[in-house]
Amino acid sequence: MSKEKMKGISVKKSEDFSRWYTELIQKAELADIRYNIKGLVPYRAWASVSIKRMYEKYEKCLEKKGHLPLIMPTLIPERNFLLEADHVEGFSPQVFWVTHGGEKKLEEKLALRPTSETALYQMYSLWIRSYNDLPFKRYVSGQVFRFEGGDTRAFFRAREFHWIESHDVFATEEEARQQVIEDMETTYEMLQDEFAIPIIFFQRPEWDKFAGAVHTYAADALMDSGRVLQLPSTHLLGQNFSKPFDVTFMDEDNEEKYGYITCYGPAISRIYGAMISLLGDDQGLVLPWDLAPIQIVIIPIYRADTKELVLDKARELTHLIDDLIDNAYIKLDDRDYVNPGEKFNEWELKGVPLRIEIGPKDIENNQIVAVNRISGEKIRVKQDELNKYIENYAENFTKLLKEKYSIQFESQVEIANTVEEVKKIIGENKIACTGFCSIDLDGEPCAEIIEKEVKAQVRGKRTDAETHKFEKCVVCGNPAHETVYVARSY
Amino acid sequence: MSKEKMKGISVKKSEDFSRWYTELIQKAELADIRYNIKGLVPYRAWASVSIKRMYEKYEKCLEKKGHLPLIMPTLIPERNFLLEADHVEGFSPQVFWVTHGGEKKLEEKLALRPTSETALYQMYSLWIRSYNDLPFKRYVSGQVFRFEGGDTRAFFRAREFHWIESHDVFATEEEARQQVIEDMETTYEMLQDEFAIPIIFFQRPEWDKFAGAVHTYAADALMDSGRVLQLPSTHLLGQNFSKPFDVTFMDEDNEEKYGYITCYGPAISRIYGAMISLLGDDQGLVLPWDLAPIQIVIIPIYRADTKELVLDKARELTHLIDDLIDNAYIKLDDRDYVNPGEKFNEWELKGVPLRIEIGPKDIENNQIVAVNRISGEKIRVKQDELNKYIENYAENFTKLLKEKYSIQFESQVEIANTVEEVKKIIGENKIACTGFCSIDLDGEPCAEIIEKEVKAQVRGKRTDAETHKFEKCVVCGNPAHETVYVARSY
Repeated sequence: MSKEKMKGISVKKSEDFSRWYTELIQKAELADIRYNIKGLVPYRAWASVSIKRMYEKYEKCLEKKGHLPLIMPTLIPERNFLLEADHVEGFSPQVFWVTHGGEKKLEEKLALRPTSETALYQMYSLWIRSYNDLPFKRYVSGQVFRFEGGDTRAFFRAREFHWIESHDVFATEEEARQQVIEDMETTYEMLQDEFAIPIIFFQRPEWDKFAGAVHTYAADALMDSGRVLQLPSTHLLGQNFSKPFDVTFMDEDNEEKYGYITCYGPAISRIYGAMISLLGDDQGLVLPWDLAPIQIVIIPIYRADTKELVLDKARELTHLIDDLIDNAYIKLDDRDYVNPGEKFNEWELKGVPLRIEIGPKDIENNQIVAVNRISGEKIRVKQDELNKYIENYAENFTKLLKEKYSIQFESQVEIANTVEEVKKIIGENKIACTGFCSIDLDGEPCAEIIEKEVKAQVRGKRTDAETHKFEKCVVCGNPAHETVYVARSY
Repeated sequence: MSKEKMKGISVKKSEDFSRWYTELIQKAELADIRYNIKGLVPYRAWASVSIKRMYEKYEKCLEKKGHLPLIMPTLIPERNFLLEADHVEGFSPQVFWVTHGGEKKLEEKLALRPTSETALYQMYSLWIRSYNDLPFKRYVSGQVFRFEGGDTRAFFRAREFHWIESHDVFATEEEARQQVIEDMETTYEMLQDEFAIPIIFFQRPEWDKFAGAVHTYAADALMDSGRVLQLPSTHLLGQNFSKPFDVTFMDEDNEEKYGYITCYGPAISRIYGAMISLLGDDQGLVLPWDLAPIQIVIIPIYRADTKELVLDKARELTHLIDDLIDNAYIKLDDRDYVNPGEKFNEWELKGVPLRIEIGPKDIENNQIVAVNRISGEKIRVKQDELNKYIENYAENFTKLLKEKYSIQFESQVEIANTVEEVKKIIGENKIACTGFCSIDLDGEPCAEIIEKEVKAQVRGKRTDAETHKFEKCVVCGNPAHETVYVARSY
């Protein structure tokens, strides 16, 4: 096996996704699972640059919609957790506890935040005074911690992950419901338009909602395997937290009222994991134009006698492109100790969107060779048309990626009228659409039967228009109050 | 006392700095010390926006100089701390320890990182293979935790603070020393040029260096009170960490060698505290143009009969400026329930660089009134010259601020030949320059005498050229090997 092959990914994505992903993480230098605490994973530079850009885009979008940033303590006193009963029950088993400072035992245990409601809302209670302060929309960017059992996987499931959480307070329930819709729109804008990940939103069943929420609405990403992956969710908390945390405001009618709260939590590190899983191919990473740490790599191809000529020209081109093209990092790979073939493989593995090759023949003909990371297509471009070529290329790259991976939800779905049919559809790596008695707690026993027999989950009901109607619940045969979707999830 | 006065800061900065600072933090809504863990302080939106911009500028500068970002776990296993003896001794008393996950006692205590050397270098050991990988320059942005006793003060001293740490590995000691110089240059570029904070670098005495360092070089900010405040420091770690953590590389001569490491830690939250302390005045915050969350506020002045006219014009102006001026956030303050005088005070308190007032008379005369936050100067500007006026204003604002607060180090310094003279100079809120036996550990007893008698610290020797020479140590009378500076610090 040649050295080049060894450096590349040794399995096809379609044949062994799990091994493909593990090799991608390691060989493209995205993360390192050898850190000596289980479930905590350093992100290396190549992933960190992209993740920071994703944060930037997401924060800008939230700010455009009226959110302001807050920087909050990472630690939360135990007593705060005890205030909302469902919340404490949901999160307690997952909390990392700080008990000592130096040699000294602390008077009260401190939680590494698993989510920030109980830290924020006591402050909101102090900061919000009157209806003039509403809507009050803030976001916190940072890491959260969850002591989860089971396997961890870089970016997807870890005991520390990186997210944004926005927490908004309104005077009325109607406004809070509108915010949930805005959060879903934000998710589509970011995930589908910027990160090229197709998603669909479901209202989650009652037994599967955020601990303390009235309702939870979660995006499921449609992965190419037919499985779904839960991505950002937004929660209508109603007054469930404003009451115990005393988040009140003086209304226009001079009455003190409890606010209606929503919260929204896009986990950037998990979205990154979904993105590289979905967009990557057998050669390695494929990244949207804006998110690649380097957009264009220039590879000079020469022998001893043409080295100086080619390197000079390559340097000239690099400066030229650097001057003319905004929003792109250009790298000239002039390493002498790596041959061109290895360089091609390395930058394909790392997902650089555009490769430019230049050799003595190209210089003679005033051209370069441009290689497309998505299609692998090579074309010759005249040097005086290069600027225009790159501009078009940049404009179209992410669009092409979105088109390639856009999955029409309907195309994944088949109708099921019996549990057997659900099982068959799931077995074919599709999503089943079926009738269901209820997504309130009454329906939980039926969902448990599906979970057991089909090894798949009731994801909830679509938040957009639903056209399918069913008479009976697919499990118990009682009247179907809902149309739900059943899928396997990661 | 009028409502306006109550909202403003009630003491002069020069009369009671401590109370002035506390009121500034609270009334300008920068942070809230009422969070229910001692020493942890939420940063409110107005401070968080500026701090995020400071991060952005700093990260861009580090990246320009060849650093790439990493995202690292917040937790570090206890065993990592035990590898470098000075480091464990220096940091152990300050570590917050995580001992439990849910109800389960963890097998090993985990530290909330007080600094990241011991997390990073075990990874560097895996990532760095050959001289081709060097220099290896990375930075981590995030929070660190130190269980410190004593008083805490928002932004200045807290048990959780926000910084950047860069950690660089080199093949030779000479390159590492060059990096320390680069770090000092970066500090001048950021603190002096961008944040308008005058600083000077000292090589710290041996007894005052970073736990595990060969040498520590720290910036002291020159505060207007004559005291100094320690700001970023950069450390030559040499091979002190590369040996225990096995950070080696295969050199060109095919020999395995230990790398030379430097680390640099600008504490952004503390720099923010220094900046607002230094630049603020009796009216409140003053911020460099780029760092203000809002650059321009437009305040319409009207009575019932002119309301519509004035508001229409103010809206028109807001859109116009918004379209024409880049890099500025413009706010139209059209709140009906706040009178113009209160608005003036509020935006002065919050440090908005430029206030534009517009009333019926101004509309008649095709003008606006522009009010300068630094000088308080009011001038009339014709509407068709407004665009140009703002461009000039923006360009000059931070420059003016820097000039106003630029403190020539020499002007703060007086020469001392006896401990009595040192005491006198310190008593006059100046910095003493004097002879000292040694800044190696031999000199520590003399420094302790100064600390005890003068209540001031030996800050070390200047890293730039030193012109003053002394024969004898000011304390013990032995030959003076160094010229040092003595100052009180915050």
